[in-house]
Amino acid sequence: MNKNSSNIMALAPNTSNKRETVCIFGTGDFGRALGHKMIQSGYPVVYGSRSTQISNLIPKDAEVLSHAEAAQKAAIIIIAIQRQHYNFLTPLAEILHGKVLVDISNNLKLNQYPESNAEYLAQLLPGSKVVKAFNTVSAWALQSGTLDASRQVFVCGDDVEAKQMVMNIVRALGLTPVDKGSLLAAQEIENYPLQLFPMWKFPMFLSLGLTAFFFFYCLALDVIYTYIYENNNFSFFIAFTIPNRVCPVMALILLALVYLPGIFAAIIQLYRGTKYRRFPNWLDKWMLCRKQLGLIGLAFASLHAVFTLASPLRAFVSWRTGKGIIAQALNNKTEPLNTTTAWISDSYLALGILGFFLFVLLGITSLPSVSNNVNWREFRFVQSKLGYLALILCTAHTLVYGGKWFLSPSAYKWYLPNIYMLSLVVPCAVLVVKFVLIFPCVDKPLTRIRQGWERNPKYSE
Amino acid sequence: MNKNSSNIMALAPNTSNKRETVCIFGTGDFGRALGHKMIQSGYPVVYGSRSTQISNLIPKDAEVLSHAEAAQKAAIIIIAIQRQHYNFLTPLAEILHGKVLVDISNNLKLNQYPESNAEYLAQLLPGSKVVKAFNTVSAWALQSGTLDASRQVFVCGDDVEAKQMVMNIVRALGLTPVDKGSLLAAQEIENYPLQLFPMWKFPMFLSLGLTAFFFFYCLALDVIYTYIYENNNFSFFIAFTIPNRVCPVMALILLALVYLPGIFAAIIQLYRGTKYRRFPNWLDKWMLCRKQLGLIGLAFASLHAVFTLASPLRAFVSWRTGKGIIAQALNNKTEPLNTTTAWISDSYLALGILGFFLFVLLGITSLPSVSNNVNWREFRFVQSKLGYLALILCTAHTLVYGGKWFLSPSAYKWYLPNIYMLSLVVPCAVLVVKFVLIFPCVDKPLTRIRQGWERNPKYSE
Amino acid sequence: MNKNSSNIMALAPNTSNKRETVCIFGTGDFGRALGHKMIQSGYPVVYGSRSTQISNLIPKDAEVLSHAEAAQKAAIIIIAIQRQHYNFLTPLAEILHGKVLVDISNNLKLNQYPESNAEYLAQLLPGSKVVKAFNTVSAWALQSGTLDASRQVFVCGDDVEAKQMVMNIVRALGLTPVDKGSLLAAQEIENYPLQLFPMWKFPMFLSLGLTAFFFFYCLALDVIYTYIYENNNFSFFIAFTIPNRVCPVMALILLALVYLPGIFAAIIQLYRGTKYRRFPNWLDKWMLCRKQLGLIGLAFASLHAVFTLASPLRAFVSWRTGKGIIAQALNNKTEPLNTTTAWISDSYLALGILGFFLFVLLGITSLPSVSNNVNWREFRFVQSKLGYLALILCTAHTLVYGGKWFLSPSAYKWYLPNIYMLSLVVPCAVLVVKFVLIFPCVDKPLTRIRQGWERNPKYSE
Repeated sequence: MNKNSSNIMALAPNTSNKRETVCIFGTGDFGRALGHKMIQSGYPVVYGSRSTQISNLIPKDAEVLSHAEAAQKAAIIIIAIQRQHYNFLTPLAEILHGKVLVDISNNLKLNQYPESNAEYLAQLLPGSKVVKAFNTVSAWALQSGTLDASRQVFVCGDDVEAKQMVMNIVRALGLTPVDKGSLLAAQEIENYPLQLFPMWKFPMFLSLGLTAFFFFYCLALDVIYTYIYENNNFSFFIAFTIPNRVCPVMALILLALVYLPGIFAAIIQLYRGTKYRRFPNWLDKWMLCRKQLGLIGLAFASLHAVFTLASPLRAFVSWRTGKGIIAQALNNKTEPLNTTTAWISDSYLALGILGFFLFVLLGITSLPSVSNNVNWREFRFVQSKLGYLALILCTAHTLVYGGKWFLSPSAYKWYLPNIYMLSLVVPCAVLVVKFVLIFPCVDKPLTRIRQGWERNPKYSE
Repeated sequence: MNKNSSNIMALAPNTSNKRETVCIFGTGDFGRALGHKMIQSGYPVVYGSRSTQISNLIPKDAEVLSHAEAAQKAAIIIIAIQRQHYNFLTPLAEILHGKVLVDISNNLKLNQYPESNAEYLAQLLPGSKVVKAFNTVSAWALQSGTLDASRQVFVCGDDVEAKQMVMNIVRALGLTPVDKGSLLAAQEIENYPLQLFPMWKFPMFLSLGLTAFFFFYCLALDVIYTYIYENNNFSFFIAFTIPNRVCPVMALILLALVYLPGIFAAIIQLYRGTKYRRFPNWLDKWMLCRKQLGLIGLAFASLHAVFTLASPLRAFVSWRTGKGIIAQALNNKTEPLNTTTAWISDSYLALGILGFFLFVLLGITSLPSVSNNVNWREFRFVQSKLGYLALILCTAHTLVYGGKWFLSPSAYKWYLPNIYMLSLVVPCAVLVVKFVLIFPCVDKPLTRIRQGWERNPKYSE
Repeated sequence: MNKNSSNIMALAPNTSNKRETVCIFGTGDFGRALGHKMIQSGYPVVYGSRSTQISNLIPKDAEVLSHAEAAQKAAIIIIAIQRQHYNFLTPLAEILHGKVLVDISNNLKLNQYPESNAEYLAQLLPGSKVVKAFNTVSAWALQSGTLDASRQVFVCGDDVEAKQMVMNIVRALGLTPVDKGSLLAAQEIENYPLQLFPMWKFPMFLSLGLTAFFFFYCLALDVIYTYIYENNNFSFFIAFTIPNRVCPVMALILLALVYLPGIFAAIIQLYRGTKYRRFPNWLDKWMLCRKQLGLIGLAFASLHAVFTLASPLRAFVSWRTGKGIIAQALNNKTEPLNTTTAWISDSYLALGILGFFLFVLLGITSLPSVSNNVNWREFRFVQSKLGYLALILCTAHTLVYGGKWFLSPSAYKWYLPNIYMLSLVVPCAVLVVKFVLIFPCVDKPLTRIRQGWERNPKYSE
């Protein structure tokens, strides 16, 4: 410690408020932006460059020297050059020995090279302490100060002291360092900025496909059928009525798809009599994107809620209401209140509102800051108990809404069921199987299996 | 440092990407799950077990040895056995000397033992470095990879180096270590996974009790009274009308209950003339669950908002509207617009919307990630100033809505007031007393007391 | 390490659960509150005071000694006295040598002194290790336990060991330490609790100004004009109709103002032919408050949504609807459905709902916990691509809603356009220029400029 400690003290800002010199190899865009920012934050910056001719692009207060000279002036060297030029550093190995090298590079494709750039650098210069950092920050954002996203800087490296030194610089620039452990994490850190919602891809494509299918299904039944057989032009249904039919169907199906893999998992475990075999790959993947499925379902549910609440504002609805009232007025009579109709209408509205309320609660609980503040037991209580309650309420909402039409032949245009009937298949199946699974005669062996018991040890890996 | 530092380097992943061996004592469920995950993450794992016979449940690539042999192979030993068997470790004290022991145990009840399991372990083996970790992670989640909640692993321990080593493993498994300080924190960490929303218990029971009371109150006045005296079957009010009467009442009362303890505190401080005496216990507890009370109130307010917005969709409302219009049409006359009615209707809607808007703002500000990003002054500004404004707007909304009926005898069925009248008692009391408290003649002494002045030093502790 | 390590072990809680003694200089409010809390958490506390007479205000279990005596009893001394009295510490320099001094002071104004209080203390006592901490915590909150906001304690200091010791105490008190780096950060930490939403000031004033303007503009056209020329008393429009006209206008303009600075930046870069010159100051400031502008816009959009959905509940709307139906009934005829009207009404509702949905999505993405979990590419995708889509949908919503009135002279009361026409100016301008900017002939040079190319190197700094 004595040696290292004095080392830190030499590098750390001392009471006379001087910060340690930082060397930057490479005068490209990111090198300049980072240098600029560091000078602003009080660090003396020296650039290492092939041509020591001072370019007017380089921050005014920075020195420009040859690589060797620049490296000797600082304990931390930021390698702002591309991976393919890393081998020019090997002749400098002696000068760079014991220095902290900060690898800030990014690749153009995921897993472009067998090993991460930072690990490659560490292999080239085994005497230096390589730290991966800054690759998630954009040069543009650094310079313009618009750091709305990614104030987080992932840092990893095998040398704890070196990592600490880099993390102190990160903090001094107003960013938040996140320690990701050893240099093995560099691959992950380098892949991170290349991702575009990787977990959302499958749920998004599934939703888009299903939405398109249901949209054209509705278009055929509600607009084309009506136009052909009843000669009514309801083309304007495309704008409002059909979206408001597709949205609840999608919301209900996606909510059910969140709970379906759990059902499959339970059945597989019961069948195999052990929990010590891996689930099939598709089931594992499905289980991992349940949160995304649920959130897309919530988006559809929210759209359905707003569309429904906005429907009294529609010209079509006003016209239809008016027509009904005028017909009664012209017949000189008032229809009495039908209590059954009132019960059905009030019930499905109330069920839908409560189901939506619980759905929103599930969504709020999956916000990172909220789910980090609940423990495992609480999270499972919300996502499992309240989630199933939401599914029950939403399924009941759909059943009460459309129940009376199930047996009516006029509901089957072209002998096809209405889409809310289709939407009930998956949730009802999930609820029925779940209901079976909570019977003691099924639940007990399942609980034992999940606690480690095996019916048939031959299956176990 | 010299010794420890070389120690770390030997254990930390070096450039040839080999990770240090980890030893796991115990081949139970969690031991196996953790071992499995560690092997996946590149750690060589060796199990210490009573029977060194290789079970097919243990991950394939793991070695199984006797406890003593296994312990010698690794610097970190994970104790995946139950507390009651800890004393079998005492004969191994010499081998375990200087090693890092990771206590991952949980209890079945809160505060089951006088000291935490980790502290007990540290007492048994004073020569080892005990670190508490992993107890908040479930074996099931580790193995199935569904780590939605609790990616956080609380780590505590008295030895900083040992803690760092464990935190590096935590990171390597894709989890987030949270340093909770010394081993004294182990008790808290062990209690954490046993909790189920402890702060929400009282507010939830209070809300459920009040909701039940108001529900039956409404049922009596709106359904039973109408059925007996007016012979109308309004039983369907149970589904929609009554919930939409209870929700706003609950929201308003709960919002007022958030601000009531502050009023009590001010009165107590004024009466005592000092702030240096503890508040009564009930007041302390009440003050600590204000956030929960407010959030439950917000839930009721949201339900009220959606119920109200959905009411034009009700069959009953359509029927009532139609009836009114038909009656006018049959009488051949159109009623002119009553400007006063328009003013009242528009005002209470606007007041309600603005009050609800502020209420939602309070809710957003209490999200952990938002409240961590505001300072004390900003938080108080939102929660106190905007909160009182929300209370004023919501109270005004209720007053304007029902004001005209206060003096009408027909509003008092069975001589009982309507529930919105009951709901106004607490908020009006809070607002009146708060209004008195901001008068300079009251505010000045209160401010002085809160700055430390004492009217009557005999009271101070 | 050997020396320091033993040092830590001596101070850290050992297995016999004794915590190190903490000394507090100053028996003022915060000193007492902090001492109280520390005693509760198991720390022996000793106060250093001018008068060693035991005051009954000081926590019972604390010792009160002279400054010199107290300082000798502890390794950590909390300086709970005001900056202007710091110089009395200089005679104690020898006793305080090597001790950890925790500066907890706050100022009354931003940047009250040239250097921060902590740096001033470090200059006075160069032999001590000064750590800044606890200044963001309020004494009142500490004592009453109502730590809703600011569980975060910002800690900074030049000595890493000293900082660690203070951070351990912070954790023991149940608070979250946030390491802000070296003592240079003290200035920022001291300014932090004095701020009241500094980033929100300009957007708030701009919004209030515009809202007031549009409110009176509407008041003139909708209430006063109608009263003068049509002799209708529509004064109740003030409560509902006018707010619901101003809100959407504000939402649309603020959303457009979020994207306008990006347009300006692109034009300036294209004109200058380089990205290496700073933007004008106003543009920089504008770009930094885009998030706040967008969130205020979202607030207005939410109000507009709720106001619109609530409009069928208004007495005025019921009366108007009834009047229309009765007129038809009395004329003994039913108007047929106008398909064009139905298309327009459904389209603008659907466009508005989708635009609002995307707007809410933008808002959710800007929650700190969400934006920290997306990378730069994902954040830009949401804020730029989805943001522009939201702007397009909201502009289209307004255009479809009011399109038919643009050419109607009756829409121009007093020859003034309706406010939704005014609201379209900025968004349409933004969309048109953006449309030009994505043409390849403009986009290509812009992309090259942003990658570092310069048309005209004379401009570069």
